[in-house]
Amino acid sequence: MSAVSELTDTLRLCIHTMTTKPWPLETAVDKYAAAGVRGITVWRQWLEGRPLEKSRSLIADAGLAVVSLCRGGFFPSIDAGKRREAIDDNRRALDEAAAIGAPWVVLVCGADPRQSLDESRRQIADGIAACLEHAEQLGVKLAIEPLHPMYAGDRSAVNTLAQANDLCDQLDHSSVGVAVDVYHLWWDPHLQQEIERCGRSGNLLAFHICDWRTPTIDLLNDRGLMGEGCIDIRRIRGWVEEAGFNGFNEVEIFSDRWWKADMDDFLAAILAAYRHHS
Amino acid sequence: MSAVSELTDTLRLCIHTMTTKPWPLETAVDKYAAAGVRGITVWRQWLEGRPLEKSRSLIADAGLAVVSLCRGGFFPSIDAGKRREAIDDNRRALDEAAAIGAPWVVLVCGADPRQSLDESRRQIADGIAACLEHAEQLGVKLAIEPLHPMYAGDRSAVNTLAQANDLCDQLDHSSVGVAVDVYHLWWDPHLQQEIERCGRSGNLLAFHICDWRTPTIDLLNDRGLMGEGCIDIRRIRGWVEEAGFNGFNEVEIFSDRWWKADMDDFLAAILAAYRHHS
Repeated sequence: MSAVSELTDTLRLCIHTMTTKPWPLETAVDKYAAAGVRGITVWRQWLEGRPLEKSRSLIADAGLAVVSLCRGGFFPSIDAGKRREAIDDNRRALDEAAAIGAPWVVLVCGADPRQSLDESRRQIADGIAACLEHAEQLGVKLAIEPLHPMYAGDRSAVNTLAQANDLCDQLDHSSVGVAVDVYHLWWDPHLQQEIERCGRSGNLLAFHICDWRTPTIDLLNDRGLMGEGCIDIRRIRGWVEEAGFNGFNEVEIFSDRWWKADMDDFLAAILAAYRHHS
Repeated sequence: MSAVSELTDTLRLCIHTMTTKPWPLETAVDKYAAAGVRGITVWRQWLEGRPLEKSRSLIADAGLAVVSLCRGGFFPSIDAGKRREAIDDNRRALDEAAAIGAPWVVLVCGADPRQSLDESRRQIADGIAACLEHAEQLGVKLAIEPLHPMYAGDRSAVNTLAQANDLCDQLDHSSVGVAVDVYHLWWDPHLQQEIERCGRSGNLLAFHICDWRTPTIDLLNDRGLMGEGCIDIRRIRGWVEEAGFNGFNEVEIFSDRWWKADMDDFLAAILAAYRHHS
């Protein structure tokens, strides 16, 4: 379906700790490194219970790059107190990212179903704006991840790459950019042009891969391993690379099905799928 | 949240037979009419087992308008034979619509996960084009219903109102138009302008209402009754009416939860929700 070439090495392969959810950080780091994976995206839960400096050295000593910290965001609320708490929490996420050496925090921007989408969208812009100075001081960016429209009610009111790009234009700050996830965006007829746009503006920070299964039986945790679904991942990777992206291809799979499997088998399957279907 | 006025009568209230799935056509017709509902959208399964003329008179005798026939579409397939069968089936749907007095057939356009979205989109345009002459001869239209992006894998590769409007422009034929369903489109930042656009072009045929629940626990059959979710239905109705639409407000709810309830209770709840949340 595509002229983009197969990935023949794992130099740009990153895995999210959430993908291998049963593994604690130490195990994930050891297993990823042994398999030739070169990057890790750390979910904040995996940082709990030990000093941040220790997590940093654990990862660095294994030769893995910290690709990003997941996740900040969840800015909107009808309750002004909750909105202030969210901003505080995002500043803490930035601190954590700086401490472990993550260049950006990925934002699941949030939505409050008790108010209009317009209002949630305004609060997202305000929330990100309130974190930018702190981000700049730390040298850590905020990566807006547009989420699939099926999450517009409660997880993110930013649902297309065009919206994320518009938001970057509006904020007009070097500490904000975009994370492109094929799961959320593959259906969009304007995806290629919006990828070009965020590449041109220098805002394309991150690229996440997995697949869309048909049927999908759960809105949250039924993502497919690359090749198990209908997304032309390689074609989208081609667009991202044409837009100048040369960062990590991050495997981010939430799957009740895979989380029940043996994680070593799953890791092996990820490696194979990365080569053949990404 | 909106300056649009409450619906104080049921003159423009239509219900889809699928909404009250446990009721056969005779029961639905009797119950709707007794409740003051003035329109019915008939799903094709409800026409089985009796002559079309009999269904037509059953509905007409109760004083109900046939608002539309659901549903045609499902044009794409990697198999050319299946694509021809789909076109034949859509022509039969047009015949059925003409026989029962439905002014259009609603199209769930289809998608085949085994091929690219681009290819499915081309096949949809070709499939509709192949039905237009037959539609014109019968005086029945085809209403393209853009479906939520969560159905892009297997139900419809037409996922935004902009796409449906573009498709109408491309087909440029008086027998094709658009059905706007709040469930599929509420998240779209361009919804208002695209509703204006299809009103301006005379393509806005139908308006479907229900609600988006948070959380949504099933991709197909967990729609909410108006007021049970986060869609500002009244505001969208305002946009549709500003665009010149004065047709029926069609209640189309697929809900395993409601289908387990007493259908008389559900009908009463629909009437109340129609007034207070639509």
